[in-house]
Amino acid sequence: MNNYNRHLQLPEGVDDFLPGPAAAKRSLENKLLGLFRSWGYQEVVTPTFEFTETFQAGQVAAKEELLFRFIDRKGRVLTLRPEMTAPIARLVATRLRKEKLPLRLCYVASVFRYEDPARGRRREFHQAGVELIGGTGVGADVEVVALAVEALLESGLKDFQVGLGQVAITKGVLADLGLEGEALAAVKEALVGKDWVGLNRLCEQYGLRGTARQRLELLFTLHGGRRELKEAIPILGVEAAREPLAHLEEVLAILERYGLGRYLFIDLGILRDFDYYTGLVFEGYVPGLGFPVLGGGRYDGLLAEFGYPCPATGFALGIERVLAARNGEMFIEEESRAYLVAGKDLAAALTKAKELRRSGARVELGCGISSLEEARREAAERGLNLVWVETV
Amino acid sequence: MNNYNRHLQLPEGVDDFLPGPAAAKRSLENKLLGLFRSWGYQEVVTPTFEFTETFQAGQVAAKEELLFRFIDRKGRVLTLRPEMTAPIARLVATRLRKEKLPLRLCYVASVFRYEDPARGRRREFHQAGVELIGGTGVGADVEVVALAVEALLESGLKDFQVGLGQVAITKGVLADLGLEGEALAAVKEALVGKDWVGLNRLCEQYGLRGTARQRLELLFTLHGGRRELKEAIPILGVEAAREPLAHLEEVLAILERYGLGRYLFIDLGILRDFDYYTGLVFEGYVPGLGFPVLGGGRYDGLLAEFGYPCPATGFALGIERVLAARNGEMFIEEESRAYLVAGKDLAAALTKAKELRRSGARVELGCGISSLEEARREAAERGLNLVWVETV
Repeated sequence: MNNYNRHLQLPEGVDDFLPGPAAAKRSLENKLLGLFRSWGYQEVVTPTFEFTETFQAGQVAAKEELLFRFIDRKGRVLTLRPEMTAPIARLVATRLRKEKLPLRLCYVASVFRYEDPARGRRREFHQAGVELIGGTGVGADVEVVALAVEALLESGLKDFQVGLGQVAITKGVLADLGLEGEALAAVKEALVGKDWVGLNRLCEQYGLRGTARQRLELLFTLHGGRRELKEAIPILGVEAAREPLAHLEEVLAILERYGLGRYLFIDLGILRDFDYYTGLVFEGYVPGLGFPVLGGGRYDGLLAEFGYPCPATGFALGIERVLAARNGEMFIEEESRAYLVAGKDLAAALTKAKELRRSGARVELGCGISSLEEARREAAERGLNLVWVETV
Repeated sequence: MNNYNRHLQLPEGVDDFLPGPAAAKRSLENKLLGLFRSWGYQEVVTPTFEFTETFQAGQVAAKEELLFRFIDRKGRVLTLRPEMTAPIARLVATRLRKEKLPLRLCYVASVFRYEDPARGRRREFHQAGVELIGGTGVGADVEVVALAVEALLESGLKDFQVGLGQVAITKGVLADLGLEGEALAAVKEALVGKDWVGLNRLCEQYGLRGTARQRLELLFTLHGGRRELKEAIPILGVEAAREPLAHLEEVLAILERYGLGRYLFIDLGILRDFDYYTGLVFEGYVPGLGFPVLGGGRYDGLLAEFGYPCPATGFALGIERVLAARNGEMFIEEESRAYLVAGKDLAAALTKAKELRRSGARVELGCGISSLEEARREAAERGLNLVWVETV
């Protein structure tokens, strides 16, 4: 990147939306907000930056290198939000703590992460999501997974799959390996990357064997439905895993009966990108896209960090990723009639334009057009119907 | 502000929107976007931060102390956008320079200024606005002022006024004073603040007299319609002022004939907050609100700073200010039927809920509700119609 014309350039990892993509984005966001509202979720808005302490309490500051931070003139560290769950937890724990539970909130927001654009990641991107605060048990998990599937359908995607995992089990298996620091991080990375060769290398390197290794391998290989999950129980069936597995199976059984079975599979290798998840987690995938289009899950410990102990679950959908997955296929916008209104008397043209807009038309004014010939040429070039206004 | 619970606090000058205000904000933004689209404006989206060079070229970095700046890991200075006209000028000059003119673009965005919250200003706020790129002459100025008035009407405001000024004249009168630096800044501040006493003190202090002083005083006192403007011409009527004044008068005459006269007045004291304005400028005011709800004008030199010389005009409306001016009066939202759907069989409840949503209803699921009595209590507390689903 050259310095001499930096005023014409964008920093790496952030984007403009030209009119076509901006219309697709707006249309998608409005569809999702409409869906969320129809499920009883109410929109909230939080600031673009907050004190870094909010994200530390929100357990999203662990990956410090991902945060866009800056210092205000009082020397305090502010952070551009890397996600919306921590700000909403703060909001609920402070200004909404007297609301009756469950509380259903949703948002559309841009978020910021200092990612590597060379690896296909963006530094500012947009999310639409929901948080179901105070919902416990199978019912709440069923609700958010069902809503996630409907959000993907509403987004115009057809060929997607949602993987269901359980971080309580996944974290338990990882903890039982007896690894720490870099070794543990390497195993996690192999798991998230579904890197089977790398895993085997790491197992040899760190001398992993016996049940611990068998369980770790199962996290990689278990991929299917309820039958596969049942077969895994004897292997994972330590006391701590029994109840989470039964819960996961029940959620899947209900969603299958509701008719969403074809979209769902079990994947105990799912480890989400932030540390606050405690239970059932899920991710949505589309063929050919290297990243999930949607992700979420249960975070029963997060609100307690803000002084309001309360179970919760939710998800966020990546707007840019859904638009990319649709591969340029736009929503068909309601086609409104379009006119060019021009004439020598601008006040009369304005009045005519107003009439046409009232009837639902889109109207451009021909500013600066002074002859009928010019107006005809302009209308033809812009693909508009011409209304030439003459006054006596 | 205490440090010990900073994770629960917001930095000064930024805000949460709880569900009611968030719904009012969303509704207002959608109404305005709908209006802008009906005038032929297409939405664009630009990144929340850009290189500081973009805002320097955009002549909005002059008030450096207003910028939220931070340094990226390559040592480059990034800035949270303080307004949207410079980013759109950059976008037009780079990726849209082959589009046929005039080009009509619009946006809804949050912007960031390091203002003093104690003086009623916010550090993050939201704007909806338009840019008419390549529109010259009376027609383009008429269009944006007419659209600004209709935007305020569409926003639900009734008792507003839009002042029209001409920075070419205002800047000319100020330049003729022969003041520089702090002295000039002090006079500008008195002008913007309509501080007549302060102005007289400054005139004495700096020894201003004769025609220069008379013209300066006229900027303060001229406040009216075309008659007042005509009377001012002999006083301001230096060669350079004649054409801008005739232009201003013509714009006002057309808008009066179009029927907007009651909303408009002339105010040659208007000096907008950024330096890029070159011609007709305007601001919208509402009684009781200490700041304009809307502002804009012609900026014929800005696009040249990005290598694409082209006249342009536009305006931005302050979303928070309009919401404040409505004084809590919300739009009446279309009331959809609202239900609580519950039952022991969650899959059956999900199916029933889906049916109801298809018919346009808002449906909350009773997650965790296991008895009809509990469901009745819950529905009554939440003000919802109850649908209890039983399966055989």
